[in-house]
Amino acid sequence: MSPFAAPVRDLRFVLEELLEYRSLELPGFDETSPDLVEAVLEEAAKLAGEVWAPLNASGDRQGCVRREDGGVTLPDGFAEAYQAYVEGGWNGIGVSQALGGQGLPEVVASSVQEMLHGANMALGLCPMLTAGAIEALAHHGSDALKETYLPRLVEGSWTGTMNLTEPQAGSDLSRVRTRAVPEDNHYRLFGQKIFITWGEHDASENIIHLVLARKPDAPEGNKGISLFLVPKFLVNEDGSLGERNDVTCASIEHKLGIHGSPTCTLSFGENDGAIGYLIGEEGRGLNHMFTMMNEARHKVGVQGIGVAERACQHAFAYALDRVQGKARGSEATISEHLDVRRMLLSMRARTDALRALALYCAAQLDVARHAADAVEREAAQARVDVLIPVVKAFSTDQAVEIASLGVQVHGGMGYIEETGAAQLLRDARIAPIYEGTNGIQALDLTGRKLSRDGGAALSGLIEEVEVTAGELRYNDELAALGESLAAGAADLRAAMALILEASRDPQSGADAIQAYATPFLALAGHVLCAWQMGRAALKASHALAGGSSDPFYRTKLATADFALRQWLPAGRANRSVIEAGMQSLIDFPVTAS
Amino acid sequence: MSPFAAPVRDLRFVLEELLEYRSLELPGFDETSPDLVEAVLEEAAKLAGEVWAPLNASGDRQGCVRREDGGVTLPDGFAEAYQAYVEGGWNGIGVSQALGGQGLPEVVASSVQEMLHGANMALGLCPMLTAGAIEALAHHGSDALKETYLPRLVEGSWTGTMNLTEPQAGSDLSRVRTRAVPEDNHYRLFGQKIFITWGEHDASENIIHLVLARKPDAPEGNKGISLFLVPKFLVNEDGSLGERNDVTCASIEHKLGIHGSPTCTLSFGENDGAIGYLIGEEGRGLNHMFTMMNEARHKVGVQGIGVAERACQHAFAYALDRVQGKARGSEATISEHLDVRRMLLSMRARTDALRALALYCAAQLDVARHAADAVEREAAQARVDVLIPVVKAFSTDQAVEIASLGVQVHGGMGYIEETGAAQLLRDARIAPIYEGTNGIQALDLTGRKLSRDGGAALSGLIEEVEVTAGELRYNDELAALGESLAAGAADLRAAMALILEASRDPQSGADAIQAYATPFLALAGHVLCAWQMGRAALKASHALAGGSSDPFYRTKLATADFALRQWLPAGRANRSVIEAGMQSLIDFPVTAS
Repeated sequence: MSPFAAPVRDLRFVLEELLEYRSLELPGFDETSPDLVEAVLEEAAKLAGEVWAPLNASGDRQGCVRREDGGVTLPDGFAEAYQAYVEGGWNGIGVSQALGGQGLPEVVASSVQEMLHGANMALGLCPMLTAGAIEALAHHGSDALKETYLPRLVEGSWTGTMNLTEPQAGSDLSRVRTRAVPEDNHYRLFGQKIFITWGEHDASENIIHLVLARKPDAPEGNKGISLFLVPKFLVNEDGSLGERNDVTCASIEHKLGIHGSPTCTLSFGENDGAIGYLIGEEGRGLNHMFTMMNEARHKVGVQGIGVAERACQHAFAYALDRVQGKARGSEATISEHLDVRRMLLSMRARTDALRALALYCAAQLDVARHAADAVEREAAQARVDVLIPVVKAFSTDQAVEIASLGVQVHGGMGYIEETGAAQLLRDARIAPIYEGTNGIQALDLTGRKLSRDGGAALSGLIEEVEVTAGELRYNDELAALGESLAAGAADLRAAMALILEASRDPQSGADAIQAYATPFLALAGHVLCAWQMGRAALKASHALAGGSSDPFYRTKLATADFALRQWLPAGRANRSVIEAGMQSLIDFPVTAS
Repeated sequence: MSPFAAPVRDLRFVLEELLEYRSLELPGFDETSPDLVEAVLEEAAKLAGEVWAPLNASGDRQGCVRREDGGVTLPDGFAEAYQAYVEGGWNGIGVSQALGGQGLPEVVASSVQEMLHGANMALGLCPMLTAGAIEALAHHGSDALKETYLPRLVEGSWTGTMNLTEPQAGSDLSRVRTRAVPEDNHYRLFGQKIFITWGEHDASENIIHLVLARKPDAPEGNKGISLFLVPKFLVNEDGSLGERNDVTCASIEHKLGIHGSPTCTLSFGENDGAIGYLIGEEGRGLNHMFTMMNEARHKVGVQGIGVAERACQHAFAYALDRVQGKARGSEATISEHLDVRRMLLSMRARTDALRALALYCAAQLDVARHAADAVEREAAQARVDVLIPVVKAFSTDQAVEIASLGVQVHGGMGYIEETGAAQLLRDARIAPIYEGTNGIQALDLTGRKLSRDGGAALSGLIEEVEVTAGELRYNDELAALGESLAAGAADLRAAMALILEASRDPQSGADAIQAYATPFLALAGHVLCAWQMGRAALKASHALAGGSSDPFYRTKLATADFALRQWLPAGRANRSVIEAGMQSLIDFPVTAS
């Protein structure tokens, strides 16, 4: 696989020029100077490119192995690469200083995450899960639990997991059956969890499982589910590690991709029961878990972008090297053929657009958490709530397409595993599935997020899209981009109105929310990403008009033109899809063949 | 993996109702009665479902192994399953009786191919390659070569291969360097070929390689390339097998999918040179090879449809079994959730649409070969020429998306290899690459096929689309489908006019053909497939109006509605893509990162 150079230039463009993050001027970020951010990005790029990326292909080939003693052997070098990450202090960069982290803005933490996922997605999953555990524990855990577990999780010397899924309970968590029996000041858990990412490994001293389970007397359904903390090793009063808890790795999965990430079936309570501690309130487990789910969903979107970036770089390197055919009369690398250039430009334009939207969402997260003004915080949170399902689902769906295009650019070589392009497609394919399938994300958008404020937050975003469209139209060179963006904004507004109206129907409202969810999310994703690329075009145009000779800006103009005029149209077609109604979905007789 | 039931019902619908193949009344098909066709389809379905399909997953897991003696061990059962195919007489069903085949129409042969690829794509590749060899040999081989090799190839007891690619010569075959040195009445070949499908195996007594190579004094470029026949075992005068020829399998590839199909690097002439025989004229090797390429391209499209069908069935079976969440208040399988239904309907509608178009193309092939009237033959051939790149590229691109949706329907289980959905995605992913990448197909369409007749053949097809749109509009219930189809036809016509105009520009014409190729092919694919589904809707509507209670027709109405009103709009967006021009493709600076 080609070397990986983390996209520092584009990340800085998004942070400094598109988001103007210095102007956020949020309390708590006084020390986050541009110089510091630049240094952080450069150092993270080194870790990603020099330590994590070289293990990506070997980790895929080697995979994880469950040993007879129930432990899991990671691919060679993974434990050391994770240690380098912990020792560099990377695990706590986005965690608040109050919890022992460095408290850097989410935009910076997300940028670093993208780099690490681009370098090695399988390894990147480990800290992603830990971050979710930190979040849930920090919000809902007792002081005692926080004191015992948080410092080590923030440091990264202990890792975290999310134990939700059971064989009968996937997207529908109300079916969770794992039992938690009260005993003294703790519980004993019995049950089986599947698809537990980094559920067992030797890269950290301890593993802290966050587990959804039911007390024996709990009601059925969502309201009977509580959240428990179950450590792999029990922790003594002095903080040292005690006995091995009764949780074991029964098996690991043989998956399409992310072979370097152990996906475990965990058995709780095969002997006396796994000792666990209640996090937060009884019966509020799903709510507490959703605290970490929301964060995790943004991170999965960012992960998709990381893999898309890697696929871009891999395809570009091949296209610049591979000589086939002629262009304008002389021998040429395939990067000169316009049909190949279409694939490369499509990959690059989409990756950059997804990145800009994900970081816009991260910046809104920063405002939602840190702005001095409560109204400002609430407004930003409302935008975050709308954006997160879009960032998760749209980025990951697109990442699969981008990685698949990367295979195609390689021709026959793309189908050979040694080339590495196929691994990126295999790895990318999980992201639309986990952390809530993309269908679930779409339902979250059209169901909860649109209905609870009548579309107000999304309307606010569409207004900003319209402002950008107006600015583009005012610029002679970019007027065609503005026309396209304005049309996209109109489509999104019309589709939203249609869904809001349809969802109010007492008979068919619930059906409408389901039926239109996926095309609506795709429409929103296209329009919002195109918006960011429209803003990028304005910045690039301004820089070039100001005399900049940086080729980065010419690239940005070409990618923006592509995004608005050649990518957005397919997204706009989703308005027609929604307007076609849902009768064919309802009428369709689903039979075995 | 779920059992496979070949889609006999839909194949019969396409053959009997959509294509009305009985009305073709072509010379030579007098004995092809509907009863015979039905019997053939039913028997093929048994072979596919009972013999080939059960080996699909095990073949993937086990893969092929190159032994130390240079041979290749196929997965367990593959040789026997291939023998069952040969013994059943299946290899010759589409081959003319003059060559020893059964001479069934191409529409029937294609239907059988689709079933076999759906059952086991890796195994299906073996006869696909043999068919290409038969075609090239029958058209261009000397009588002596034909006499020696054709009967065994038609029977299937010998298999064929296509040896085109070399490390430096992929899409650009002018770079072929394999040498063919004249000696007595044959040649001795020296060189290396890569990506040779079924290049070595033990399932047949002999393997007949068709090889592109150059004589030592041949000019550079395409005109120096000739086609040679190189048998694995030399054939004695009496037809018995003689010495092992100097062609060996140097290695086999470790691929993303089709693990049951050995992809070989073949070394010719590591000792004295591999004995080969010239096929056709010196310097016309590429032309002769294209005889088989055109056939093979149609077959690869059909292969994509087979895998798509399998992915449909696999996803439907899971969705009908998996209980999650509630629908209308009670526990439900996921097939009841409208968002999942959208995925299922999208998979089914697209698969059926692709099948109908591929079989329409096959029917035109039958007319082109067999019609009594020369004008009719030529008109049909002109349509075939336009349709083949569309069938190859569009069917295979869509098959990848359909298989990927199949993974998504399975949720987390889709990512686990044991489930089988992931294999279908891995297998499907090769089809857009081999037999000419889909980019090459698109260039063939906008370059050679459109320019040589000024779009006349495609115009003729668009006129038929418009007729169907008119018929739909005339039917109250289907009027909305007609509007959508008419708009699609108008888009295709406008895009064609734009490309024809742009391609005439002496400066930028060649660029325009390249730049617009892929979106134009996608537009044509959507419109032509939607056309077939429009015709299907008319037939279904007619049957239901006539009192039929067959649920098949209700399914067809739902899939047709989806295809025309929810799938076609995204395809229509390609007109905007083309109208956006090619400047951004040209301006885009392709750099390493």
